[in-house]
Amino acid sequence: MTSRSCLTVILAAGEGTRMKSELPKVLHMIAGLPIVAHVAKAVTGAGGSDIALVVGKGAEKVEAAVRAIAPNVTVHEQTERLGTAHAVLAARDAIARGYDDVLVVFGDTPLIETAALAQARAKLADGADVVVMGFRPAGPNGYGRLIEKDGRLMAIREEKDASAEEKQIGLCNGGLMALRGKSALSLLDRITNNNANGEYYLTDVVEIANAGGQSVVAIEISPDNVIGINTRAELAEAEAIWQNRMRRDMMMAGVTMHAPETVFFSHDTLVESDAILEPNIVFGPGVTVARGAVIHAFCYFEGAKIGANANVGPFARLRPGADLAEKSKVGNFVEVKNAVVGIGAKVNHLTYIGDATIGAAANIGAGAITCNYDGYNKHLTEIGANVFVGSNTSLVAPVKIGDNAYVASGSVITANVPADALAFGRARQEIKEGRAIELRARYAAAKLAKKAD
Amino acid sequence: MTSRSCLTVILAAGEGTRMKSELPKVLHMIAGLPIVAHVAKAVTGAGGSDIALVVGKGAEKVEAAVRAIAPNVTVHEQTERLGTAHAVLAARDAIARGYDDVLVVFGDTPLIETAALAQARAKLADGADVVVMGFRPAGPNGYGRLIEKDGRLMAIREEKDASAEEKQIGLCNGGLMALRGKSALSLLDRITNNNANGEYYLTDVVEIANAGGQSVVAIEISPDNVIGINTRAELAEAEAIWQNRMRRDMMMAGVTMHAPETVFFSHDTLVESDAILEPNIVFGPGVTVARGAVIHAFCYFEGAKIGANANVGPFARLRPGADLAEKSKVGNFVEVKNAVVGIGAKVNHLTYIGDATIGAAANIGAGAITCNYDGYNKHLTEIGANVFVGSNTSLVAPVKIGDNAYVASGSVITANVPADALAFGRARQEIKEGRAIELRARYAAAKLAKKAD
Amino acid sequence: MTSRSCLTVILAAGEGTRMKSELPKVLHMIAGLPIVAHVAKAVTGAGGSDIALVVGKGAEKVEAAVRAIAPNVTVHEQTERLGTAHAVLAARDAIARGYDDVLVVFGDTPLIETAALAQARAKLADGADVVVMGFRPAGPNGYGRLIEKDGRLMAIREEKDASAEEKQIGLCNGGLMALRGKSALSLLDRITNNNANGEYYLTDVVEIANAGGQSVVAIEISPDNVIGINTRAELAEAEAIWQNRMRRDMMMAGVTMHAPETVFFSHDTLVESDAILEPNIVFGPGVTVARGAVIHAFCYFEGAKIGANANVGPFARLRPGADLAEKSKVGNFVEVKNAVVGIGAKVNHLTYIGDATIGAAANIGAGAITCNYDGYNKHLTEIGANVFVGSNTSLVAPVKIGDNAYVASGSVITANVPADALAFGRARQEIKEGRAIELRARYAAAKLAKKAD
Repeated sequence: MTSRSCLTVILAAGEGTRMKSELPKVLHMIAGLPIVAHVAKAVTGAGGSDIALVVGKGAEKVEAAVRAIAPNVTVHEQTERLGTAHAVLAARDAIARGYDDVLVVFGDTPLIETAALAQARAKLADGADVVVMGFRPAGPNGYGRLIEKDGRLMAIREEKDASAEEKQIGLCNGGLMALRGKSALSLLDRITNNNANGEYYLTDVVEIANAGGQSVVAIEISPDNVIGINTRAELAEAEAIWQNRMRRDMMMAGVTMHAPETVFFSHDTLVESDAILEPNIVFGPGVTVARGAVIHAFCYFEGAKIGANANVGPFARLRPGADLAEKSKVGNFVEVKNAVVGIGAKVNHLTYIGDATIGAAANIGAGAITCNYDGYNKHLTEIGANVFVGSNTSLVAPVKIGDNAYVASGSVITANVPADALAFGRARQEIKEGRAIELRARYAAAKLAKKAD
Repeated sequence: MTSRSCLTVILAAGEGTRMKSELPKVLHMIAGLPIVAHVAKAVTGAGGSDIALVVGKGAEKVEAAVRAIAPNVTVHEQTERLGTAHAVLAARDAIARGYDDVLVVFGDTPLIETAALAQARAKLADGADVVVMGFRPAGPNGYGRLIEKDGRLMAIREEKDASAEEKQIGLCNGGLMALRGKSALSLLDRITNNNANGEYYLTDVVEIANAGGQSVVAIEISPDNVIGINTRAELAEAEAIWQNRMRRDMMMAGVTMHAPETVFFSHDTLVESDAILEPNIVFGPGVTVARGAVIHAFCYFEGAKIGANANVGPFARLRPGADLAEKSKVGNFVEVKNAVVGIGAKVNHLTYIGDATIGAAANIGAGAITCNYDGYNKHLTEIGANVFVGSNTSLVAPVKIGDNAYVASGSVITANVPADALAFGRARQEIKEGRAIELRARYAAAKLAKKAD
Repeated sequence: MTSRSCLTVILAAGEGTRMKSELPKVLHMIAGLPIVAHVAKAVTGAGGSDIALVVGKGAEKVEAAVRAIAPNVTVHEQTERLGTAHAVLAARDAIARGYDDVLVVFGDTPLIETAALAQARAKLADGADVVVMGFRPAGPNGYGRLIEKDGRLMAIREEKDASAEEKQIGLCNGGLMALRGKSALSLLDRITNNNANGEYYLTDVVEIANAGGQSVVAIEISPDNVIGINTRAELAEAEAIWQNRMRRDMMMAGVTMHAPETVFFSHDTLVESDAILEPNIVFGPGVTVARGAVIHAFCYFEGAKIGANANVGPFARLRPGADLAEKSKVGNFVEVKNAVVGIGAKVNHLTYIGDATIGAAANIGAGAITCNYDGYNKHLTEIGANVFVGSNTSLVAPVKIGDNAYVASGSVITANVPADALAFGRARQEIKEGRAIELRARYAAAKLAKKAD
């Protein structure tokens, strides 16, 4: 990467009323990460992690979302809305610090890619003063066209001012820009609001810089990069594009997905090669899947680590702190939270494992529950290696089950069980011969009585 | 809406053999509502809720499906199949009652929209005698073209009779029609079967009305409106279009959906703004979701009410009568039926709550079960505010747990628990040191013996 | 079918490095069946079940996958990679056995259809010596064009050698071929490696056969048939095409699917008409669904038999040996394995039924568990007709519950229960008045103490 210093101005003052939301627009999520954090991530990748964030009033949460990705952020409030150049100039102090490069991006374009930004910076390094990022929309109608000549960008022509010939141009203004830091303020300060709307347009720098003999160029970036989010429908479309990118990357890296369109990744999901993902899997943040693991359909994971050749689901829920060792098995209707499941251990069905450690090769029966919470505190359940916990058992934490111990089905275990011991805690069964006949007669009579009411 | 009276003739006598079903075609479901009921809903919206339903033999269920939407329905049996005009005339008695407007629609076009029908009625109100609803299919080949001149519909030209020039016309006959009530029967009665198939064609009214100097016009409606269902594949396609309409409307109204294509609504689902719907949610009939609620993936709801800022799923099933108060939480592998979950109460995992009330801020542990059914009768479980129900507890109804009471994990509760009391009902745990070694030896021997058999 | 003998040469020596997998490429799965097994199934359907499998080194698993479909297979190792004709000649011994027809197909084209292969064989039966299977790709660029004249295939022209006129030809070489057995070896042996790459190309037989005055023809097959799998993305695309074919066939046969794109079939799934499949169902191998059954959303089935008018799910998992009788009901969060659920019996919620028989009209309460495994052996639970098993019951196998018996909620049942008897096994409930206040004070204090640490 270049050693040139770089400031990114992120414009995030838009109100987003079309979202019909109490949440600021740029805090809506794509793949579990706020829109503006996606932008921060992309610019960080391109070396632009010094960020000047231009916001409206009361944007503490927006700042926090950016700061979580790029700590070196200053916040600049844009009190009035007088156009894009006016917005950029809200960050005057930051620009004035004197960076080599200044990137101007929008806070609501979550699909912007590091490669596109790096390409723009490369043009600055090559001597350009202004770089405009263009794209080719499916239909260019309504977009400003990029008028190029001999490799220079001469003008950004608005649709209404374009000649018939200019309307044939497919390369359109994406709104994103890179400016040489030394001349950025000088250019921005020369923008006026002598136009129909009385606004300061950032696009005017093209004309100003050309008039001053500076070097203005356009680059072409993929249309996805400039998709802005204004409605929930656009949010969903952007999520779909993001997911498709991730799915493609995963498959290229050797992950099998039977129906990739039904697997939803988080921004930070890691899956190793030869893992198999069946249909309908949802990844929340912080999940890793090691090689050869098989994830069956209908799984929901957050903050979990799945070891090599583990076998998970269907219908498994892993919550934060779930740590499944190699070749372990977590089956259907099982929830694991803050717990280690040892090598080759099995938790096959209808079980809640919370705040626990399960030793290697242990087997936890159907319907077993770790009773980890007393209403105030969470307690630990420690299950040794090779332990057999019978079905429908309640393990009342804090409790330890020693290696090789055996807990009988249906027990309530409240005290520690030594290694090699057998534990049970269940009532003696009683049988009342013929009594079911009586009982049913009574219940049936009650039913009739109820109906008669 | 207009004050003009309106009769809708719904043609639903088709047999639908290509469905390969024992169920009449128009009773197959879209979004949980029979096809013909969607039609009844649309015409009701357009003021056409007086319905003359033309059916084949034994169509009691079809009638019931329409009546559930629009009670004012008369049924007319079409005993022979002699063409569309013949079908309409099966409803002669209804038409003869003397309505201002008569709409003629098909029972198998579930995507017909109120707006399209209202547009046709508006033309009648403006003085038209016959209104033909046209549409522009992707490829017009095979459809009858609407031949217009000076704003009048001159003819419906069948493909085989069309000139090269006429074949260029994109507007085609959708089959639906609106007739001025006063002249409807007179027009219909003049239709003959002097044609190759010997059938009475409704489309002939265009020529007849024009010949009589009446006003005939065409309107254009969206192609979806005329999609008829003849196969299960077409049924699935119509369902997809219906779902996409609903998803779009939901997003426009401020509902977030990460993957809208995986959320399936019912015809009557209501979701407020700023609710978040993760992927893979199925709504059965009768569900409402209040603002700010978060619905995690893999949920299945029917007849349930989800309060503001409630947190539901993943893997939650709400059945009829589930009523989740504000900020309540229903987690994974939980089923709730006919039960109120109080404000801020939590039912986090692996639980069945049926026929119950749960007080505010109560906490129901993993694996707890309300034993509401004795094989004949359902009984109530009443859980007070701030109650803690330990994991794997069985609450044998009818039973009441008073406010602030505490039920120990693994208990079977058969009698009422007073407020502030601690209840338990579980056997004392016993431990047999070293016995697990013996036990395993015995089981292993049994296994070997079995294999030796 | 023709009585002509037929050998199929399956070329499966490719390494598939772009899959980034430790598994041989042709063993990756489509609809639960290895790619190469799909090919074997298609050729078997076309009468070509005598198979010569050309493989690379150590391809035992590939052989096994083919043998599972078509037992009559010989394996031929291709030690060097010198082109397609060289690969076919690895199977010289098999071809030399003297078949009427020889089909040459690829092991990595899972979507090849029996009808296409049968069409090729029909041409041999009609007197052709060489049949080349062509297809029309969306864009023919890069493919060899099939140059036909008077119904004869004159040449396969590589893109780079094609004239402008020839480039207009849309019919391209799909690579698959059928050869008259008598002349196959003679043709193949005349192929040389006098070309830029020094390889032996199978396509050269066209020229050679034509030069010898033999009959060479092309047939056109659908493009799907020749889709080869080289990456995980292509694997997923082929899976999608396969699933869409199956969904279409299912709907044509009278199966209702609300959202067919969310239902994933196995290669051998059988569903009868008027069954209803809600969204999000995954079929593993060996599942049958009888007429009128309703399968709710979010179900996962393997090796299961679902009876007529049964009602299953949502959130049901059926594992191998699950056998649900007519009108039985298996509800949410229920797992059934190796068990018969009798006529009209109900297993509604949160239950594991493994290694069991459940009699007609029996009712198994929520949270009931068959404790079928003791850590070494699996044992049987036999539940009679009309039995009521209360909620949260543990049935410790081996155990029998007689007809009409009644098991109280929360019981642990370790001994047989006679018919008509009432059984219970649960501790007496105790209540400590006011003790919950103390308990909470203690827990709260502990929490504070912990925080203070």
